[in-house]
Amino acid sequence: MQSQFLAKIRQQNPLIHNLTNIVVANYSANGLLALGASPLMSDNVAEVADIQQFNRGLVINIGTLFSKGVEAMILAGKTANQQHIPVVLDPVGVAATAYRRETIDSLLAEVKFAVIRGNAGELACIAGEQWQSKGVDAGQGNGDLIAIAQRVAQQYQCVVAISGATDVISNGANTALVHNGTPMFPKITGSGCLLSAVCAAFVAVANPSQYFAATLEACTVYAIAGELAAQPLQPTQYGQFNMALLDQLGAINAEQITQYGRVDYV
Amino acid sequence: MQSQFLAKIRQQNPLIHNLTNIVVANYSANGLLALGASPLMSDNVAEVADIQQFNRGLVINIGTLFSKGVEAMILAGKTANQQHIPVVLDPVGVAATAYRRETIDSLLAEVKFAVIRGNAGELACIAGEQWQSKGVDAGQGNGDLIAIAQRVAQQYQCVVAISGATDVISNGANTALVHNGTPMFPKITGSGCLLSAVCAAFVAVANPSQYFAATLEACTVYAIAGELAAQPLQPTQYGQFNMALLDQLGAINAEQITQYGRVDYV
Amino acid sequence: MQSQFLAKIRQQNPLIHNLTNIVVANYSANGLLALGASPLMSDNVAEVADIQQFNRGLVINIGTLFSKGVEAMILAGKTANQQHIPVVLDPVGVAATAYRRETIDSLLAEVKFAVIRGNAGELACIAGEQWQSKGVDAGQGNGDLIAIAQRVAQQYQCVVAISGATDVISNGANTALVHNGTPMFPKITGSGCLLSAVCAAFVAVANPSQYFAATLEACTVYAIAGELAAQPLQPTQYGQFNMALLDQLGAINAEQITQYGRVDYV
Repeated sequence: MQSQFLAKIRQQNPLIHNLTNIVVANYSANGLLALGASPLMSDNVAEVADIQQFNRGLVINIGTLFSKGVEAMILAGKTANQQHIPVVLDPVGVAATAYRRETIDSLLAEVKFAVIRGNAGELACIAGEQWQSKGVDAGQGNGDLIAIAQRVAQQYQCVVAISGATDVISNGANTALVHNGTPMFPKITGSGCLLSAVCAAFVAVANPSQYFAATLEACTVYAIAGELAAQPLQPTQYGQFNMALLDQLGAINAEQITQYGRVDYV
Repeated sequence: MQSQFLAKIRQQNPLIHNLTNIVVANYSANGLLALGASPLMSDNVAEVADIQQFNRGLVINIGTLFSKGVEAMILAGKTANQQHIPVVLDPVGVAATAYRRETIDSLLAEVKFAVIRGNAGELACIAGEQWQSKGVDAGQGNGDLIAIAQRVAQQYQCVVAISGATDVISNGANTALVHNGTPMFPKITGSGCLLSAVCAAFVAVANPSQYFAATLEACTVYAIAGELAAQPLQPTQYGQFNMALLDQLGAINAEQITQYGRVDYV
Repeated sequence: MQSQFLAKIRQQNPLIHNLTNIVVANYSANGLLALGASPLMSDNVAEVADIQQFNRGLVINIGTLFSKGVEAMILAGKTANQQHIPVVLDPVGVAATAYRRETIDSLLAEVKFAVIRGNAGELACIAGEQWQSKGVDAGQGNGDLIAIAQRVAQQYQCVVAISGATDVISNGANTALVHNGTPMFPKITGSGCLLSAVCAAFVAVANPSQYFAATLEACTVYAIAGELAAQPLQPTQYGQFNMALLDQLGAINAEQITQYGRVDYV
């Protein structure tokens, strides 16, 4: 894979506004900084519309919802849509509770997303597939993830990225698989949430016609960074992996993407 | 000490629902993941009852209270009680303010706890003992911690774990001391909060008749993990200790518990 | 520079109450613990006045505002003023939105601050200077930072610390520059927020007549700790730097301050 967008993030340091949760706010901010973007966290309805005036990419993450926060998400999303700022949805644990499903329904009805990124259980839920989820984990099911990605992408006219041992990225017309990664990802909290923020940084420096390519590069860069971070570690050194992933997001370059990227087009 | 529960956590990956605070949410989630459990953080009254339908252990931590959060704590706790899911209380800084004392009084009146885990100052406050606390620190006092643990355990018919240089664990009838640990624990934020979450993971895979044994193993495992994490470090390498503790929670095994555990029964 | 205050922090372990944000609450708490202070995080209006009865230093940080939190900030600040507890203001991203500017105006009108610490863009905004800020970053401008620091210090009768490649510290009458530091600081989230908390720990062990000297020492200690943390690292090892900074805050001593401190008086 040829890198098209990483250098632009490092040159432009795009601001990425995150409406996110108390668990991962710090790690997402540090990951975006390491990558070369500029994070801003706020979910206050009194200022989220203002922030879109200088924002480049918006992340809406439902990890720890509260009612005022949902109001802020919808306002931020609508304002971003008006300003043609790409919006990334992370439907954390959407299958877990009725409240999360209703919130995602409202968000999908009111906001146009450039990218929806989640795990298999979350995207299966949005697609209306049967799936055995457990809380915020991916869970297990027999659904065809490629078909699920394509269907959700077509329905919401966006790019869908399903994270897992193999990532599936689709915009409905084009679909690709990323085979990079490490089993350590699901063992640190917020690794999916940070990937959603990373997707926002990549689409922030792309044209709308490039959102599929930008999301694919985001997932590939992130998966390679994880691979390189895990390489020198024991398989249970989750603490070290947390910090090594930030190091690798700071160090990763176009040559490594070409060298290590294992991407298939379906 | 013979390990009875650690392997079950690794096999069953029990979901642990945490109503916790903005300071430690990330570290508690990472610690539970490293240990082998599956964390979910939510304090939204709109969904905490729903979550108990697939929950295995509940943690109520009053570190950074807000009024809607207290409502959610009581609803989650009562629902968990109905579903026979064990509930762990962490009365963070209860002695610090009238608001925290009143909140703990409400929680103790409305919810049946399987385990109350805190430091000496927090448990002395619940026991109505004189104690010189300072904010969320353990503080100093002359009370007999064994008597305090036994009294609170009897009053609330639960297991009490008082953390410190020596941990005291009691269910009123049986009392044990854990001599493992490291002075680095109180020098990282959330080390007590994470232990409460770890206790929840252990009781989640135990029968009610085993809650004392499970809490004792939780405290021993955690204290040994801290000891092993601190071993190669300089005494002020608190940053490294943060991450090394996660590594050790991922790596610790039954052999190490037998080899290093220093437990006395009173 | 001769250290006057660091040893006092280590001896007295002053409690530092932080009204802060979901992004940096954990890192600020860990940084204060490493340094030798005792952090308490709460922004609940039901208890922040109570907390001032045993508080030694108060930090008001507007990183992720919510309306109840602003109410708590004003109550905590006024109560601290009555109890002669020094208050530090961190006007995070004040230039970014009207809501933040209005909040800072209210805080400056209602609370007397001992120290205002921010980056160039934030202090330029408070001084009413033209500045090109971007979200919560320092941004760029042609204003004279020494003049800005002096003017704001005189207007609000406090110490002003402007962080950057060179820090500017002024109380209006005296002004000093700290040339220590590392380009890694702005690449980790909350490095400025933690410095504000560190300033609070230093003024907490000082007399009001020493607030300038205490803030200057705080900035110098922090900048040296960052320098030492970055020294063995590759320039993109941001994850390692996060933890190494905590290690250095734990280890730094008076000899290192004398040896490495590069302070000029204007």
